[in-house]
Amino acid sequence: MTDFEARLRKLEDEAAIARLIASYGPLVDAGSAEAVAALWETDGVYDVDELVMNGRDEIVAMVQSPNHQGWIAGGCAHFVGPPVVTVTGDDAVAVCHSLMIVNQDGQFVVRRATANHWQLHRGEDGWQVAVRTNRVLDGRPESPALLSDR
Amino acid sequence: MTDFEARLRKLEDEAAIARLIASYGPLVDAGSAEAVAALWETDGVYDVDELVMNGRDEIVAMVQSPNHQGWIAGGCAHFVGPPVVTVTGDDAVAVCHSLMIVNQDGQFVVRRATANHWQLHRGEDGWQVAVRTNRVLDGRPESPALLSDR
Amino acid sequence: MTDFEARLRKLEDEAAIARLIASYGPLVDAGSAEAVAALWETDGVYDVDELVMNGRDEIVAMVQSPNHQGWIAGGCAHFVGPPVVTVTGDDAVAVCHSLMIVNQDGQFVVRRATANHWQLHRGEDGWQVAVRTNRVLDGRPESPALLSDR
Repeated sequence: MTDFEARLRKLEDEAAIARLIASYGPLVDAGSAEAVAALWETDGVYDVDELVMNGRDEIVAMVQSPNHQGWIAGGCAHFVGPPVVTVTGDDAVAVCHSLMIVNQDGQFVVRRATANHWQLHRGEDGWQVAVRTNRVLDGRPESPALLSDR
Repeated sequence: MTDFEARLRKLEDEAAIARLIASYGPLVDAGSAEAVAALWETDGVYDVDELVMNGRDEIVAMVQSPNHQGWIAGGCAHFVGPPVVTVTGDDAVAVCHSLMIVNQDGQFVVRRATANHWQLHRGEDGWQVAVRTNRVLDGRPESPALLSDR
Repeated sequence: MTDFEARLRKLEDEAAIARLIASYGPLVDAGSAEAVAALWETDGVYDVDELVMNGRDEIVAMVQSPNHQGWIAGGCAHFVGPPVVTVTGDDAVAVCHSLMIVNQDGQFVVRRATANHWQLHRGEDGWQVAVRTNRVLDGRPESPALLSDR
């Protein structure tokens, strides 16, 4: 039975983390600020190029900002790809790509293609994001490096 | 054993639904009209902005239409993202993004970025789509709303 | 117990293959040539339109080529979609889309949208790619055909 339990748990962990990561795009494009922030630990970090958000309040503020609300009002898709998840006990790492696609003058354009690196932790409320690091794939060397860090 | 059965069943249900959703893009870009329609229940609904298809025959007709066949002939990718699936007994809801990318004058352009909302049902033939609602993310307010309805 | 074993094994196989496929994009954009090649069998084939790579050495050479290194240096995302995986014993087939998005003159453009067909085999080292066939979705008839071959 122990073997079944461990194998089942591994699949459940990977599925829970993939679901959490897949939730980000729909929630942020819906403007669901509290639900976006709740993907992170209370003091979780979301580090996006020049902007670093520390803790859920700063993530809520980003979603509610005029800047982000402007993207939603104009038409916006944060399209997050399938992650490669590696679970080690109560910690996990995941890497994937994301695209930010915006409606601009009646046409959709790819505004950003981004390397995503997720550090996750399992706590009392299940899996949450400890640190998410995003770097735009515009040639800066830290972005490719992020994709092989797993 | 009951616990294992329920946990395994949950993972199987989520995997079956993710597979069904991932099947749509390849099948519709291959022009496999009957196989696309078979993802839906016999009287399933596919509601895409101005066009509402009721039942499999209307879905077959869409795939076989000169319009859709023209996309395939010119070069087209219906790229559907990883869904967030929530199963409740024999019913399920899933949300995700999709992109329609077309080859136009020798260049690929994003023609649509779309919010997808799927209602699914498990019947005698397994999981099928009851209602799929797609709304383009061009700033119309119903599109973001669809992404948080789960 | 046999039934649980078979059901669990099916989920594990599908998860392992999805993970392998999701690994390609991050690794190739990171320039991790050896790790990319190790996704294939020793004599595996990667067939991309005009370029056919036979065996791992030719895959390593592609990643290390000035051409590919130029994409990385300029900014590049090989964005691979969620695959539809079908396992039959120690063999499997998967189909999905992929996008190649590049930073060009300070803007991101979709350089290719591609039909992907994967043949996989389980050997001593687990699942690996036997043959991956990619065809650009620019209207050539073999590309849509690839997406329904499963």
